Amino acid sequence: MLIVKPQNFLLPAPLPLDCGRELRQVNLRYETVGTLAPDGSNAVLITHALSGDAHVCGRHTPEDPKPGWWDEMVGPGRAIDTDKYFVVCSNVLGSCAGSTGPRSVNPDTGNPYNLDFPVITIRDMVRAQHELMKHLGIRKFLSVVGGSMGGMQAMEWAINYPDQVDSVIPIATTSQLSPQSIAFDWVGREAIKNDPNWNDGNYSADHVPEGGLATARMLAHITYLSDESMSRKFGRELQDADSYSFDFRRDFAVESYLEHQGRRFVERFDANSYFYITRAMDYFDLAARAGGDLARAFAGTRAAFLVVSFSSDWLFPTAESRKIVRALLRNRLNVSFCEIQSAYGHDAFLLEADVLGPMLRDFLANRLEAQHA
Amino acid sequence: MLIVKPQNFLLPAPLPLDCGRELRQVNLRYETVGTLAPDGSNAVLITHALSGDAHVCGRHTPEDPKPGWWDEMVGPGRAIDTDKYFVVCSNVLGSCAGSTGPRSVNPDTGNPYNLDFPVITIRDMVRAQHELMKHLGIRKFLSVVGGSMGGMQAMEWAINYPDQVDSVIPIATTSQLSPQSIAFDWVGREAIKNDPNWNDGNYSADHVPEGGLATARMLAHITYLSDESMSRKFGRELQDADSYSFDFRRDFAVESYLEHQGRRFVERFDANSYFYITRAMDYFDLAARAGGDLARAFAGTRAAFLVVSFSSDWLFPTAESRKIVRALLRNRLNVSFCEIQSAYGHDAFLLEADVLGPMLRDFLANRLEAQHA
Repeated sequence: MLIVKPQNFLLPAPLPLDCGRELRQVNLRYETVGTLAPDGSNAVLITHALSGDAHVCGRHTPEDPKPGWWDEMVGPGRAIDTDKYFVVCSNVLGSCAGSTGPRSVNPDTGNPYNLDFPVITIRDMVRAQHELMKHLGIRKFLSVVGGSMGGMQAMEWAINYPDQVDSVIPIATTSQLSPQSIAFDWVGREAIKNDPNWNDGNYSADHVPEGGLATARMLAHITYLSDESMSRKFGRELQDADSYSFDFRRDFAVESYLEHQGRRFVERFDANSYFYITRAMDYFDLAARAGGDLARAFAGTRAAFLVVSFSSDWLFPTAESRKIVRALLRNRLNVSFCEIQSAYGHDAFLLEADVLGPMLRDFLANRLEAQHA
Repeated sequence: MLIVKPQNFLLPAPLPLDCGRELRQVNLRYETVGTLAPDGSNAVLITHALSGDAHVCGRHTPEDPKPGWWDEMVGPGRAIDTDKYFVVCSNVLGSCAGSTGPRSVNPDTGNPYNLDFPVITIRDMVRAQHELMKHLGIRKFLSVVGGSMGGMQAMEWAINYPDQVDSVIPIATTSQLSPQSIAFDWVGREAIKNDPNWNDGNYSADHVPEGGLATARMLAHITYLSDESMSRKFGRELQDADSYSFDFRRDFAVESYLEHQGRRFVERFDANSYFYITRAMDYFDLAARAGGDLARAFAGTRAAFLVVSFSSDWLFPTAESRKIVRALLRNRLNVSFCEIQSAYGHDAFLLEADVLGPMLRDFLANRLEAQHA
């Protein structure tokens, strides 16, 4: 059994942010698996999605009932083989799973930041990860790999640190959040704001805005699935009865499933972090920083790319990945692209390990070989 | 200017419901335009969607700033020509625009029903409309026409009153609500339930669950548009500034638009009605009543059909209309079908009058001619 211990890295200096403010005493929670090769060539950074954390694979203790979030993909002998690669995964800035975020104590006041926490961007998250990279003595990542918001971070790596990434694997992602996704994020935050416990983000630990956060999560969860996968998995099945209840309790299996997802989420996630991380995604727009020209955004980039999308992903559909691929090709970069046929919607990046795995395994092996050639 | 006066019809007897209960003293708010032909051949029933009402066209007074919800389609000289047809539209049972609904006074208690109102079905709505038909002295509708939930009612007419409808025009609709739509409805109701004013539906008129209802509406509104129409209409445009605010107020035009839609909705709609009408749609499943066989559900049907879908409607996509068409054809019914190319998503049934209009005009003219032949 792979046991992985969480570690903490306190940034040695204040972190400058895109909003113009800076954050002092930033901590990053991270985990590493495997051993950095003497020539430093085998480091792989895995970047996580909205609700992810540093615990990408293995278990924290032998008794730990649940492995990390990408355990099917990462570990000894897995596609991202920790016998071969030195894998790093850190919890993003603004999150609530160990890294500094809105519920952390503001060193200036001694109280939690809550909504005084600065609004951060995906690039800010990556800037903090870059500090961790230096701390770990890594000169260049063989690859930065991530799905969804993790893919956004991966692309920021390629753009902002072109000499320090050999390759990038953005999976099920987009170069800019669509108005539809911005709208879903807005509605999710509105649901939280309406919660009687919200109190402008100054809720107490005993009275968190559970209902609002669960509602936001349930909504987001619908966008992670596909109409087809929901039809296959639930159809119009009733949960506990043979006929309609004729009331407003949950009748349908899909209602019961969502309720369960919402309840589980509030046990592990913080409402203020939900605000900050969704806002970081709203603001994500690589082309905007290059006058609206995505190809120009990648102008200084030198990494090789493996871009992956999933056919039924309607949150970040294949067309978005194709836009990225076209922009990369216009820069004559080394690009591989695959749309994987899957009914699982956006969540496919977590579920299609059987198909995704071999693809990543080969790509990484080729990149490692090229390093040594 | 077409002035149309709302009218009320108090059902002469209690209305039996699918849930097994019955409703006493049911009122239907309705409007009629045009004149019933001496042979009764020209009556057209228009059935409305979730948030619609009886006011389908014209204005209530000369000062009325806004015409009815389908004024582009219905009126003198319009596609559904009130110089030619006797048009009837009634507010559905359970709504809050004049017909009996959860905020009506329960004659047994003297207080508003609120959540003691029985859960109603689409068929219950149609059963009430059938009482209105008798009251108006109409023996047969030339057509029952409706989009979205209106299309569900139209199909129920064809199934339940086969001798009393000559034709049916279900537009942008489905024969059964999908799990994805059930899920969106669930999340919308959860947003309302989390509102501090909700009070299990027993809110006072001064303290309605505005925030929750607005959130539910904003969410639903996203499903009425398409990714493409949102990109065209809003893109990532900022509303009032040149750069991000780096806070959580609305930055994007799409956020501002949603906020506006939410605010407008709470001015005219009731949260309890939102519960009842969404639940009626959740429960809608024509095939289920025929052992899962949609063709069998239409077995006794004799109406001619014009089925219309819109290419970018992802709430009730074209595939759902095709299912209906196939089931009708298996019954050797007279069926026309058109998928209209449109970027407007589900809302296209309200917005594509230029394309939809001529189609309905011709179909109705043919049906009227056939009546007289």
